[in-house]
Formats: sequence, C-alpha cells, structure tokens
Amino acid sequence: MMNKINSYFETNRNDILRQYFDFLRIPSISTGKTHSEECRQAASFVLEQLRAMNCDTARLIETDGNPLVYGEINRNSTFPTVLIYGHYDVMPADITDGWDTDPFEPVLSDGMVFARGAEDNKGQVFFLLKTVEYLVKNEKLNCNIKWMIEGEEECGSSSLQAFLASDSDDLRADICLICDTDMIDIDTPAIVTSLRGGAIWDITIQGPRQDLHSGLYGGAIVNPVKELVRVLGSLFSTDGKVLLPGFYNEVRQYTPEERIEIAQQPFDEKDVKRFAGVESLGGEVGFSALERIVIRPTLEITGISGGYTDEGLIAIVPSYAKAKVFARLVMDQNPSKIKDSLVQYFQKNLAKGVQFRCENEIGLSGYVCNTNSRFFTHMNEVSKQIFGKATTQIREGGSIPVVVAFKEKLGMDSILMGFGLRTDNIHGPNEHFALENMVKGMETIAAFFQQI
Amino acid sequence: MMNKINSYFETNRNDILRQYFDFLRIPSISTGKTHSEECRQAASFVLEQLRAMNCDTARLIETDGNPLVYGEINRNSTFPTVLIYGHYDVMPADITDGWDTDPFEPVLSDGMVFARGAEDNKGQVFFLLKTVEYLVKNEKLNCNIKWMIEGEEECGSSSLQAFLASDSDDLRADICLICDTDMIDIDTPAIVTSLRGGAIWDITIQGPRQDLHSGLYGGAIVNPVKELVRVLGSLFSTDGKVLLPGFYNEVRQYTPEERIEIAQQPFDEKDVKRFAGVESLGGEVGFSALERIVIRPTLEITGISGGYTDEGLIAIVPSYAKAKVFARLVMDQNPSKIKDSLVQYFQKNLAKGVQFRCENEIGLSGYVCNTNSRFFTHMNEVSKQIFGKATTQIREGGSIPVVVAFKEKLGMDSILMGFGLRTDNIHGPNEHFALENMVKGMETIAAFFQQI
Repeated sequence: MMNKINSYFETNRNDILRQYFDFLRIPSISTGKTHSEECRQAASFVLEQLRAMNCDTARLIETDGNPLVYGEINRNSTFPTVLIYGHYDVMPADITDGWDTDPFEPVLSDGMVFARGAEDNKGQVFFLLKTVEYLVKNEKLNCNIKWMIEGEEECGSSSLQAFLASDSDDLRADICLICDTDMIDIDTPAIVTSLRGGAIWDITIQGPRQDLHSGLYGGAIVNPVKELVRVLGSLFSTDGKVLLPGFYNEVRQYTPEERIEIAQQPFDEKDVKRFAGVESLGGEVGFSALERIVIRPTLEITGISGGYTDEGLIAIVPSYAKAKVFARLVMDQNPSKIKDSLVQYFQKNLAKGVQFRCENEIGLSGYVCNTNSRFFTHMNEVSKQIFGKATTQIREGGSIPVVVAFKEKLGMDSILMGFGLRTDNIHGPNEHFALENMVKGMETIAAFFQQI
Repeated sequence: MMNKINSYFETNRNDILRQYFDFLRIPSISTGKTHSEECRQAASFVLEQLRAMNCDTARLIETDGNPLVYGEINRNSTFPTVLIYGHYDVMPADITDGWDTDPFEPVLSDGMVFARGAEDNKGQVFFLLKTVEYLVKNEKLNCNIKWMIEGEEECGSSSLQAFLASDSDDLRADICLICDTDMIDIDTPAIVTSLRGGAIWDITIQGPRQDLHSGLYGGAIVNPVKELVRVLGSLFSTDGKVLLPGFYNEVRQYTPEERIEIAQQPFDEKDVKRFAGVESLGGEVGFSALERIVIRPTLEITGISGGYTDEGLIAIVPSYAKAKVFARLVMDQNPSKIKDSLVQYFQKNLAKGVQFRCENEIGLSGYVCNTNSRFFTHMNEVSKQIFGKATTQIREGGSIPVVVAFKEKLGMDSILMGFGLRTDNIHGPNEHFALENMVKGMETIAAFFQQI
C-alpha cells in the first residue's frame, strides 16, 4: 500500500509539482487585508482540487473575511467520519526579509521546495488533497471525509470561529485530523498532545499631538516611547518571570512524573541555538528550555515602533508609540483576565500626560489532547507500519486556534499529526518543505484512511 | 533707520518672497544621506546670494559631507568683525507626517509662510542675507562680516567640526551672531544665555539571526525587543529621574537666586500643554517644567523599532530591535562618560543570548553665554531702540552644536538672538514663520550692524 501511493507520486511527479507550485505562487497572506483577492484565489484552488476528486458538495462559504472551503465525501454511513482541517492562508513574506529567492516563486533545490507556505500549511494541505484523490480514484477510502480549509489561521481564525458559532453542526465528525505540525526527524513521526494558546494586544501610547522639538520640550513633555518602554519593561524580571499581576495564577502545574516525560521529548538545545544563531537560550528560571516552550506561558513583545530610527539624528519628543504584546498561554489561563490585568497595570503605572489604548485581536486558551481515543491508537498503529515505530508524543508551544473551538463547541478531539520539520523555518525567510516529508505524509495518511 | 529697511522689504516684497520660496523649495534634508544633492543646491543658493551682494570671497568649502558656504565682507580693518553663523539644512519632512500642505512647496497664509525650514534656519539665514545686502547697497555696514552657513546642523555639524579642527583661524571674529532662536512674542525680543548639549546613541540588540516562530521558540529564545524594553525601561524611575549610574554626577547645580531668576523667564505651562495637545506635563520630580527643559538633563528615547507592528497578528520572536537614545545634557556633563555608563549598564544587565551594539553619533556639552561682552550690551541697546525694551534673557533647552566648539577652539562668544516664535513648530509638521517676525529681525540686525 505504501509503495503504491509512493509510485503514484513518482508517476505523476511533474503534474503534482506543477499544481503544488501553482498553489504556492498565490500570495494568500491573511495578515492585514491587502491580499483578500489572493486569498480568494487560493480558496478557489482548493475548491478545484476537491471538484477534481468528484467531491460534488465542495463549495466556498462566504464570511466577513476570507472564504472557507467546505466539502463532503460520503462513502458509507457506517464508516467513521473524519474532518480534515487545514488552512490556505500564509504569513507575510518579502524577499527583503532575508529570503534567498522570491517567497512566492517556488524553487526546488536539493529535494526541498522553498516558498512561503511550502510547509505551513499549503504544503501539508496539498499532500492531503493528493492522498484523498489517490484513495478516491482507487476506491480505497474507507471513511467519510469532511473538508474545512480556512483562510485566516495565521491571523486568528475569526471567520471560522464565527461560522462555528452559528453552523457548527456541519463540521461534526468522529475525529478531526490536522497536518500542521512537525516530525522529530524524517524517520520519526510525532503526534502533538498539547498546544499553547495565545493572545495578542495592540498597545498604543499617545503623547503630544505631533512630534515636538526635544530642545524646546524634552524633559517636560512626557515622551510616549519612553513611557511605553518604562512600563512595559517593568513587566519582566531579570530571571525571565512575567511580573504582570496574576499572570501565573491559573497556570496548570505539572507533576514530577509529567516533567520527566517531557524531558524525554526529543529536543536538542544545541540544534536550537545553532538554528537560531544565538550563543545562549534564555527564559523563565526553574524550567528547562523545552518546558519554557511547551508548558510555560510567556509574555513577548513581537513588535514595537515609535519616533524615528532610520539613519542619523532627529531631535524630537515623538507623538506616539505602539507595541504588539503577545502572550503564549497554557491550560488553564484565561486570556480576558490577563488582558484586564494588563490594562489595569498600564493605567496604574503610566505617567499623566499620555493616553493609553489597548486593542485585543485574539485570545485563545491552551489545549491538551485526548490520548485515549481509538483514532489516536489507530494513528500509532499506522505509524508502526510505515516507520517501524509508534509516533513520539510531543507537546508543542504553538497554537492552532480552532482546535480549542472544536473541543469546546463540538466535543470533538483532534489528531495533530504533521510531517514538517522544526527546521523548515515556517513564518521566517526561506521556509521550505522536503518532498521526502511530503511523500511520508501521503503514505501515513493514506494508510490511516484506508485501515480506519 | 528701522523704517528704511522696512520700506526696502515692502518695495521689494515680491522679489524677496520669490527668492525665499525658491530657497524653501529645496529639500535640503541632512539627516541620512539621500538628499546630498539637494543640500548642495541649497548651499549654491546661499553662495549666489553672497555673490549678489558683491562678496567676492564667497565660496563653497568641500567636506566629507555637505559643503560649507564661506565668505568675507571686509569694510575696514579697524571695524569689529562679526561671524554670522547659520545653516541651510533642514529636518526631514513628509506630508504624511501631518502637514496640511507639501512641506517643500511654501504657502503664504495669514501673513505666515508654511514650509520645512520656513523658520529653522533657512528663514532666519535668509533675512540675514537680505539685511546685509541692504546695508552693503546703502553703504551702512559698519563692521566686517564673515559668513559661515553650514549644511549639517540638524545632524550634528560634523563637517563643520572637522573644518574647525584644521582651519579654525579663518573663522576668528570678535563675536559670532546666530539667529536660530525665538522671541518671547512679536513685541518682546529674547537673547539666549544658555543652551543644553546633546548626545545620541544608536542601540541595537541582536537576537536570533532571523525572525522565528514564537510557537516553536517563544519562551526559550531571548526576544531582543523584550530585552531592549526591559533594560532600557529600567533606566527610568516613576518620578522622572534617570537611573543610569552617574548620570547626574557632574550636573551644574543652580543657587536659589538663579532659580528665582529662571522662574521669571516667560513660560506658560498652559500654552505648552495646549500646543502639545496633552493634559499634563511630566518629568523630573523637584524641578519646574521650565527647569526640566533648560537646566536639567534628560534621557529620552527618540525612536524605537523591532518586529512587526502593522495591522494584524504575526507570531514571531523578532530578530533584532533598535532604539535611538537621546540625552539632552547640561553644563558640566561629559557625553563620553555617560556613553561609557550606558554601555556598561547594558552589558551588565542584558540576558545572555542577545548581542549589544552602541554607536555614537554626536556628543556635545552644554553652553553658558558671556553676558558681559560689549556686543551683548550693544544688542540690548539696539533692542531698546527697536522694541522699546531690552532683550529678555532666557535659557534654552536645545543645542547649537558649533557654539560650544567656537568657544572651546577660538575662545569666541556667540550672541544667540533669533526672531522665531516657540509656536512655529520647527522640526514638526506645518513649520511656519511670520513675515512680521522676519521684518523685525531685519530691523534689529540692521541696527546692530550699523551702530556697532
């Protein structure tokens, strides 16, 4: 079986790569609203793929944002139903960010495809499409499938969340399968058993109505950049703790046994340092680097701006300053409580003479998987066939926003089994995906659906 | 006499305005190096003005940066010699910064000319040119004049400083006259008796070699934006003090008598608040708002950037962060000692896992004028003729870089008597200069030169 989809790939390699590259060429960036037309093109690409495998029910679901792609492949009502969730939107990318080649002109080099979305998540959605296409063509699909491929995962999934709030019944299934995570290495599959949540706040500190000459006003007019830096900076201790009142109150504590289990999760600090190009890791005192990423929350500043930072001197008191504060949250932190604390902290500590504004874009709890479901067990068995070993269970530090909603609204568990590698540099420059990984994904998921 | 230059202005009004507007149209921005050609054009404009008043010695002095404009008008070796110093360069300006009209297309409205440089310093240099032109034409110039109009005042005057280091003898004069400051109001002239210095440091915190996914790395990779904010923020107390070790060590202390004198300097907090659009002033505890601006040093952040702050969400650990830290220094602070302290503070307090870089662009001490010189007395007498009252002595919070160098290298004092208004919004959007101020400047300076 595994050899057959392998040879299907090889036989149709040129055609498959052509389609894959066409998908990657569409700059379907969902951050901001400047690429909504391209997002629609990417949705249409997925729609055409579904129609090409005779999925007659396939359609675009219009939303306030980018369309959702939905379709059902009903084989037999006695078969289990799997919801395949993925996303066609990608993170922003520009060649000036450090890319060696145009991020939207895919390049195949040394067995790897370089492009924004090559892995996250277009690459993994694409091999799922090809896998189901193969199974349908060869009448080997032994489950019903629902597709939900959305276009706003990278900016918080708000349209899908809105759809779920009103029409969630359409998405009911026995299990949700998501290929949006990584393997340990090309020979070692991994299944993710917990995710962190996330919340982001756009903070603006408004000072004088316009930039002022610092010779005339500096010292007496409150500088909004300085105030932002002073108050925001006071939220972080020298030993990596977040000092925001209440930040750790509801954080799930782990037992010594659980922490031993986490310590066995493959994670090489040296590799991380080498990849990041840093000499030391950092973070919260009292926890390992891996624990800091997967079971501990963190408060980060993902962006800051204000005043003038180009070449040369400009003697101003700037008019305003902005920061994006991003919390990676874990079970059982409550994003809105943390926002309240952040707002109170700024209101209490900011000097008079500046105005404070905080806008919240998303707020998402952490997630812990059900490792007792039959589908989880089945995925482990399939993995043994393909790789000769069970999947490694790992905890991840990232978020997949809808997983929490699927659990809360539909009681539906998700299986998070992806085929990327940590080094694919998703979200960064030179994102890539190895064709070898793609084929391993096709083999594994084909076996999962056929033997379910 | 005052009426005569007044009527000279009125008679030649169209021609004078045309030349003034031509000067303002040249975007001679010295910050950065993208406008060096326009800076040269502005220098040539000044050169032509000098030649038009038969200043045969006028020439451009080439430098590593923008050219200096130099010229001598020698009337009589028994006359005193006045060096007129000014600058033809301007601060950056873009209509998107909040300008109502194109900053480089001057508009005359309600008696005021709106354009970048309308006041600072093209407007004041221009009326000095017209004043001397008038005196030369009418054979009323009773002193020798040296002109030094430079093109890098807004970015630290480094080329002029370099010229001073090698050829300073050319600039020897009995007194330097600088019209680059403000009046109290249109009826009340002011002479500046002290200036603050300034030093600016470009700080860069380098983290991972590229932006990383915060789900995969957030918590263990040190975030350079967070580190910059944390360490920089810790330099500021809640009561407006600078916590950098040694920052206040050498600050000149003022006697109660001197502070009473400062309190009499015209300064309306309500006006400042209204102009800035803020509800409260701020700054160092224990000093009045005016003292904070004119006799107290301040450490400001004039710009900060790092990561992503546009619309929407991007889940990254940013690669680097930058800040411009600008100290307004007073007598007798030493800029290089303060830089050393800043560098040590960052090196001691930054987490491992990030790299620190600090580049210094300028460093300048404060300046206190000689109020006992005969020229200072003469300016007061002239002021009584024109305005019916002596000049008000004020201390200023800004810097004029070369004043310190003239004193240190040539032992030459400067008279800082300008004709702008605090509300002209130099360095900000909608900079403007009233023609009434221009004419008052011409009247006063003409009398100063004629009766010297």
